[in-house]
Amino acid sequence: MTRTVETKIRVRYAETDQMGVAYYANFFVWFEIGRTEYCRRCGIVYRDMELEDDAYIVVAEATCRYQAPARYDDLLRIRTQVKEARKRVITFAYEVYNDATGQLLATGATTHVITGRDGRPKTLPKKYQKVFLTA
Amino acid sequence: MTRTVETKIRVRYAETDQMGVAYYANFFVWFEIGRTEYCRRCGIVYRDMELEDDAYIVVAEATCRYQAPARYDDLLRIRTQVKEARKRVITFAYEVYNDATGQLLATGATTHVITGRDGRPKTLPKKYQKVFLTA
Amino acid sequence: MTRTVETKIRVRYAETDQMGVAYYANFFVWFEIGRTEYCRRCGIVYRDMELEDDAYIVVAEATCRYQAPARYDDLLRIRTQVKEARKRVITFAYEVYNDATGQLLATGATTHVITGRDGRPKTLPKKYQKVFLTA
Amino acid sequence: MTRTVETKIRVRYAETDQMGVAYYANFFVWFEIGRTEYCRRCGIVYRDMELEDDAYIVVAEATCRYQAPARYDDLLRIRTQVKEARKRVITFAYEVYNDATGQLLATGATTHVITGRDGRPKTLPKKYQKVFLTA
Repeated sequence: MTRTVETKIRVRYAETDQMGVAYYANFFVWFEIGRTEYCRRCGIVYRDMELEDDAYIVVAEATCRYQAPARYDDLLRIRTQVKEARKRVITFAYEVYNDATGQLLATGATTHVITGRDGRPKTLPKKYQKVFLTA
Repeated sequence: MTRTVETKIRVRYAETDQMGVAYYANFFVWFEIGRTEYCRRCGIVYRDMELEDDAYIVVAEATCRYQAPARYDDLLRIRTQVKEARKRVITFAYEVYNDATGQLLATGATTHVITGRDGRPKTLPKKYQKVFLTA
Repeated sequence: MTRTVETKIRVRYAETDQMGVAYYANFFVWFEIGRTEYCRRCGIVYRDMELEDDAYIVVAEATCRYQAPARYDDLLRIRTQVKEARKRVITFAYEVYNDATGQLLATGATTHVITGRDGRPKTLPKKYQKVFLTA
Repeated sequence: MTRTVETKIRVRYAETDQMGVAYYANFFVWFEIGRTEYCRRCGIVYRDMELEDDAYIVVAEATCRYQAPARYDDLLRIRTQVKEARKRVITFAYEVYNDATGQLLATGATTHVITGRDGRPKTLPKKYQKVFLTA
């Protein structure tokens, strides 16, 4: 069974562009919010991972498929899952919905490697492994 | 033979994050600058496409693979190509280099459909077809 | 008596910079969220003001005084008031607090003129006047 | 006599909003680019100030007055001056012009204090003092 964490965010005026919809790069910002909340619900404060355990979740690849636009002031629901987790690599998957209509707006994925502050790959500290590996 | 357009941008302080590198979503903003400049060098002012021809290049899919970080004040070189162009779909490919060292930082691609302001797919106006289709 | 509307936002990773704090321009984005929520609690959906009444709240001046940094994942509380409202000009005032500690991080103000989509100044439609003028 | 440094930037699609103009917070990002280039022309690489001299130019106050909109793909000219410089405080002043028409779009100012990475105020290192104080 796969754990799914839902987060809601509201589209900001700053995130719109002159086409009248949310600019495409913002979906990756929202994915990040999904990741942060995913970690928080699993008892991991990502801020502490960086500060206390010198473990950074660095993005190696990011993809998004856009199906329908998000508009200013829309309430969005981001569904986040861990699609695959190994000791040094984690892949998150995302779905973004318009919360009012239920319409699927976009799907995406990000793959991450674990590094120290120096940028060198390292193994995910044990206390985090069990969370992600059994998610 | 494939036309390649190069654009240079400098990493802004606003684009860095607390990891000390450019935040990952910014690469998609830089891809967009690559697209705009690609069009400009081909004699297409994207602003006019929207205003005069009601033709919008809407993103359907976007991907980026990150190989090395971009840092504040780095001068980046973005290489943009049209990878595939049909009447209703265009795919751009990008490479982002550190201009000083020549190191490849990221590669990516975006696939676009042509729509009117109303969001409905349409065929790329003829005057633009020859530019993209023969790129 | 002055109405105060409070909104909470969490600092995003994308909003941090390499100094390890939220980048200064983001406070103006948060002010905007404060404004939007202020309007919403007064029964005004700003999106409808634009779409249905051709009334845009255009920024004429913006100021922020920074007293302490906001950091990644901090929960912030934005307090928004209408400081002054006339038929064509509205000034909002903002305070940004760290919600956990209660510390005041920044104060600011934005002054706006009402325009149509064409950018020309106009008088605030009557149905909105009473809301802002009596706020 | 006051030194003025000019920088050009082109308005990005990502910087527009649904009003069809550049979102107001971006002017503060452009001010920062003006500051960076001001420093560079004076022989100061701000990146080195942070890395080598543990001197951060932290924003204490920021203001912008908006006179006319900037639009997508407009080439802007940012004129930056040091308005006042003391050992612990520097104020920059900015003017943003549409480079094609010469129209003044906005004026602004930012006041900064010098701190170490720990956030504590400090005196500007001597080698920088003479640059800013005699600007």
